[in-house]
Amino acid sequence: MPDRSKLEAFPTPTDTPFVIEHVAEEFTSLCPNTGHPDYGVVHVSFCPRPGSGGGTCVELKSLKLYLQSFRDEGAFYEAVTNRIRDDLDALMSPVWLVVRTEWRGRGGIRSVITASSGDVPPGR
Amino acid sequence: MPDRSKLEAFPTPTDTPFVIEHVAEEFTSLCPNTGHPDYGVVHVSFCPRPGSGGGTCVELKSLKLYLQSFRDEGAFYEAVTNRIRDDLDALMSPVWLVVRTEWRGRGGIRSVITASSGDVPPGR
Amino acid sequence: MPDRSKLEAFPTPTDTPFVIEHVAEEFTSLCPNTGHPDYGVVHVSFCPRPGSGGGTCVELKSLKLYLQSFRDEGAFYEAVTNRIRDDLDALMSPVWLVVRTEWRGRGGIRSVITASSGDVPPGR
Amino acid sequence: MPDRSKLEAFPTPTDTPFVIEHVAEEFTSLCPNTGHPDYGVVHVSFCPRPGSGGGTCVELKSLKLYLQSFRDEGAFYEAVTNRIRDDLDALMSPVWLVVRTEWRGRGGIRSVITASSGDVPPGR
Amino acid sequence: MPDRSKLEAFPTPTDTPFVIEHVAEEFTSLCPNTGHPDYGVVHVSFCPRPGSGGGTCVELKSLKLYLQSFRDEGAFYEAVTNRIRDDLDALMSPVWLVVRTEWRGRGGIRSVITASSGDVPPGR
Amino acid sequence: MPDRSKLEAFPTPTDTPFVIEHVAEEFTSLCPNTGHPDYGVVHVSFCPRPGSGGGTCVELKSLKLYLQSFRDEGAFYEAVTNRIRDDLDALMSPVWLVVRTEWRGRGGIRSVITASSGDVPPGR
Amino acid sequence: MPDRSKLEAFPTPTDTPFVIEHVAEEFTSLCPNTGHPDYGVVHVSFCPRPGSGGGTCVELKSLKLYLQSFRDEGAFYEAVTNRIRDDLDALMSPVWLVVRTEWRGRGGIRSVITASSGDVPPGR
Amino acid sequence: MPDRSKLEAFPTPTDTPFVIEHVAEEFTSLCPNTGHPDYGVVHVSFCPRPGSGGGTCVELKSLKLYLQSFRDEGAFYEAVTNRIRDDLDALMSPVWLVVRTEWRGRGGIRSVITASSGDVPPGR
Amino acid sequence: MPDRSKLEAFPTPTDTPFVIEHVAEEFTSLCPNTGHPDYGVVHVSFCPRPGSGGGTCVELKSLKLYLQSFRDEGAFYEAVTNRIRDDLDALMSPVWLVVRTEWRGRGGIRSVITASSGDVPPGR
Amino acid sequence: MPDRSKLEAFPTPTDTPFVIEHVAEEFTSLCPNTGHPDYGVVHVSFCPRPGSGGGTCVELKSLKLYLQSFRDEGAFYEAVTNRIRDDLDALMSPVWLVVRTEWRGRGGIRSVITASSGDVPPGR
Repeated sequence: MPDRSKLEAFPTPTDTPFVIEHVAEEFTSLCPNTGHPDYGVVHVSFCPRPGSGGGTCVELKSLKLYLQSFRDEGAFYEAVTNRIRDDLDALMSPVWLVVRTEWRGRGGIRSVITASSGDVPPGR
Repeated sequence: MPDRSKLEAFPTPTDTPFVIEHVAEEFTSLCPNTGHPDYGVVHVSFCPRPGSGGGTCVELKSLKLYLQSFRDEGAFYEAVTNRIRDDLDALMSPVWLVVRTEWRGRGGIRSVITASSGDVPPGR
Repeated sequence: MPDRSKLEAFPTPTDTPFVIEHVAEEFTSLCPNTGHPDYGVVHVSFCPRPGSGGGTCVELKSLKLYLQSFRDEGAFYEAVTNRIRDDLDALMSPVWLVVRTEWRGRGGIRSVITASSGDVPPGR
Repeated sequence: MPDRSKLEAFPTPTDTPFVIEHVAEEFTSLCPNTGHPDYGVVHVSFCPRPGSGGGTCVELKSLKLYLQSFRDEGAFYEAVTNRIRDDLDALMSPVWLVVRTEWRGRGGIRSVITASSGDVPPGR
Repeated sequence: MPDRSKLEAFPTPTDTPFVIEHVAEEFTSLCPNTGHPDYGVVHVSFCPRPGSGGGTCVELKSLKLYLQSFRDEGAFYEAVTNRIRDDLDALMSPVWLVVRTEWRGRGGIRSVITASSGDVPPGR
Repeated sequence: MPDRSKLEAFPTPTDTPFVIEHVAEEFTSLCPNTGHPDYGVVHVSFCPRPGSGGGTCVELKSLKLYLQSFRDEGAFYEAVTNRIRDDLDALMSPVWLVVRTEWRGRGGIRSVITASSGDVPPGR
Repeated sequence: MPDRSKLEAFPTPTDTPFVIEHVAEEFTSLCPNTGHPDYGVVHVSFCPRPGSGGGTCVELKSLKLYLQSFRDEGAFYEAVTNRIRDDLDALMSPVWLVVRTEWRGRGGIRSVITASSGDVPPGR
Repeated sequence: MPDRSKLEAFPTPTDTPFVIEHVAEEFTSLCPNTGHPDYGVVHVSFCPRPGSGGGTCVELKSLKLYLQSFRDEGAFYEAVTNRIRDDLDALMSPVWLVVRTEWRGRGGIRSVITASSGDVPPGR
Repeated sequence: MPDRSKLEAFPTPTDTPFVIEHVAEEFTSLCPNTGHPDYGVVHVSFCPRPGSGGGTCVELKSLKLYLQSFRDEGAFYEAVTNRIRDDLDALMSPVWLVVRTEWRGRGGIRSVITASSGDVPPGR
Repeated sequence: MPDRSKLEAFPTPTDTPFVIEHVAEEFTSLCPNTGHPDYGVVHVSFCPRPGSGGGTCVELKSLKLYLQSFRDEGAFYEAVTNRIRDDLDALMSPVWLVVRTEWRGRGGIRSVITASSGDVPPGR
């Protein structure tokens, strides 16, 4: 089961706004209806809150373990995408956050789901 | 340990604004948690202050040696990126500065971190 | 655990030699040392024995389920590849068989393992 | 049901050996297990027998109608491929014939099946 | 109607063997069954007989007009290809000759027809 | 030593504004610190002043000889770029001018320097 | 010598604005200094004036002959480009017109010259 | 008129066999029937005779001027190709020589002509 | 210092010959003359000896750690390549082994070094 | 003037045959007729003699300095290529050696020169 307790954060190392993108190319979860595996790529990008105000950034290895915890989870694409957005939002309360999942598809249909929070700049 | 004293600058050779981009394709540092090496590409672009006002530009060989000084440094991607931005800012006080690091990734996740200072023009 | 009983076969529909290739692009198993997931592509190609002599071909859906049964298996790349070769050999006793696995890699190293049986024609 | 009576032939217009290739990029049939549609590309190449000896070539529109007759047919990839090879062999008795089917795949597995008759020259 | 009288030749300008290739990318004829237009590319390559022995080469503009004379001709691909081969053979009696026609296809099927005469070297 | 006297100009052949781009792909100069050769590509684009007002355009062969005169010059990338901008500005006083130099790099770092004068339109 | 009398026009077949592009990939003229040949590609695009108002479009074969008339002309790139722009403007008085010449270059420098008239829409 | 006297040679600088390739991408001549220009690429490759035995190599600038001398020549592709082969053969008597001309085509037909002398190694 | 004791092996999981390829894209060592870092890609491919005869395969993580142990080693490209070949040969005594290193280059020169042992099949 | 004394060698680090390739992408020399610069890429590949027999390999930095010493040398392409082959042969007496130079061309002609010594294996 996806385990948000796996997510860890470290203090933002600056007060100047900057942008972080992580692309996980080896994501897999299970179809909630058939139990068959789904495969996809997860893009996460965000602007963290300033370090002096308690802002944090997700730690990379913990993000890997968190994403791996979906491996045995049966969930719709849409639920996976919003769950990741919500868990990262709860962890970091970033200035803005975008989560985009691209799925290899099943039955000849491939899908892209995009969820966000905050005031995302154009082009993200 | 990254050594900002390695950075040298020369006087900006003009008072007309212009733009400099350096792309270092062979950057490596260490993961602060595991000690394993990280590999990435560092993009630096900036507009120097005018030469008659004491503006300077980073000297290329010194930039190479400075970036090589991260080889044995354990640091998060985010810290590396902000450190380079801060050190170049301290050296040159440029009109604007963008530092973007692209990491080959670890555990199936690749990352891009972008830090800046000043009033960066659109498209940079 | 990889489950060879999932593999099913149907009688070769002809006595004329022909060639079958299957490419499974969504294979995943676990590293036996760390438990972390590995991801790869599995290529299977073979020439079945003639139908009138009891020759058979692996059924595609059963191949999919068989390959999915490696999902929770901890095994070296080399063992996975030889295991698939052995299981398909045991199922079909084909005239020849090639199994090639291409792994996305871990720790900056990607791998390709090729196992075969019988007299494989050049270029396969 | 695939209908070999749809196939028509016309006399080979010469006694000099020559080669004909047809590529049908819009083939569809049904999975015999699930009833779901399969999609693929069918490559047919052959050298017809000489016209003065009664040799014939498959007529293109009849080949199209014949291939369309698989639309509601539930059949394994291997059976489809051998069926086309057998039907064209029965129609033309060509000097040699190759039928190759490339399938878009199901469940993350794509397949290529190659059947032939006669003495196929290298590279075909 | 294709008009072989349009083909003209000029004496081979040398006795040393050489090779000529012409690729006509704008060929059109009519389907003999439906009257609809077919479109294709015609490749002609040959080695002319030596000039001192009466050898000739097809003149380019006459080849263009000859190929244009198929515009209102209803003919199967196979007949078109062999007709061009026969007409060029009758015109030049070359050492060897290859005619390959590539058709944009009709009804989702594209075709390639290859006819030749003489002792064609490998790779042609 | 770069020799601005090599630059020649001819009267702008019109009063209608137009744009000229020259790309010199074979530029070389020397590193002022080490004496080793640098290699790069020089892009020059500008809008000349109208011919009736005394406007001129740089003559292409003189531009080639001028750029070749940097061959034995030790100069930083930034100085080279501004020098070319200044010399062309002095020659033509164009409506606007952009000089961009792209360097193959040294020590694993490649650089792009962009200098301009006048009111450069967006996208140049 | 370039001969504008070769240019012919026909009445614009509509009053609705539309856009015409011609790309001549085989342009050649002579360097006025050395007499050596220059080679380039000429792009012409324009919006003709409405037919009911006397608007015309350049006839294609006449454009070919006009461009061929530069073959023995010694002229700078800039002069060639403006000459074509002026001659087409004089012929058609189009709503807008862009002439862009791309030259294969000489002495390691390749050039692009863009001349226009009227109110050219963005992106042309 | 093509002028073989323009061709100059210099002594082969070694007795060890080696291979020279020249590719002239800006060749133009005239159609002998219509007077319209033809455009093509001329490939020349050869192995010169040893220098101590009087062997020579064609000088590059003289080759350029020689090829330019076809600019006003009306000649068939085949004649151009054999003429270049003969003139270079007469100049150098090389161990082997290949001349290949690739023509952009006229009337929708593009052509490639290949002439040679001596014992050309495979793959040339 | 490169540490061959880091290399570990596991018993070959079969007696049927098969082929293993590992590609390490993040190799770095030091120039023995200047101390500056070199970067390259290391390709290793081999056929292990049969398991029942005591044959072994290099373990992937140990290979990663072994290759990382060159990080602070000053060595010529040629020595690095032969050292890896010798160490893997000593570890596994494989049927055949190929080590190819591709270096990003220094001073404008990039290099590829290929060392092998045993009877390497063609194409490896 | 090219200075063969700049070339240095180190003992071959093994007695097992292996292959070394160096590609210098920034070569420049001067045209002996016009004094204008030529630009090219120099490929060097060889198999060194065994170290125990006194075999040596060219040292990379010395190769760079040697190639840079052609910067002010007026020499034909053919002479440059044979000179490099001869100097490396004299330095190392390798088992075999191939030197290939690819020139960006002048006057619309680009050239490739290939010189070798010893018994070069196919495909090199």
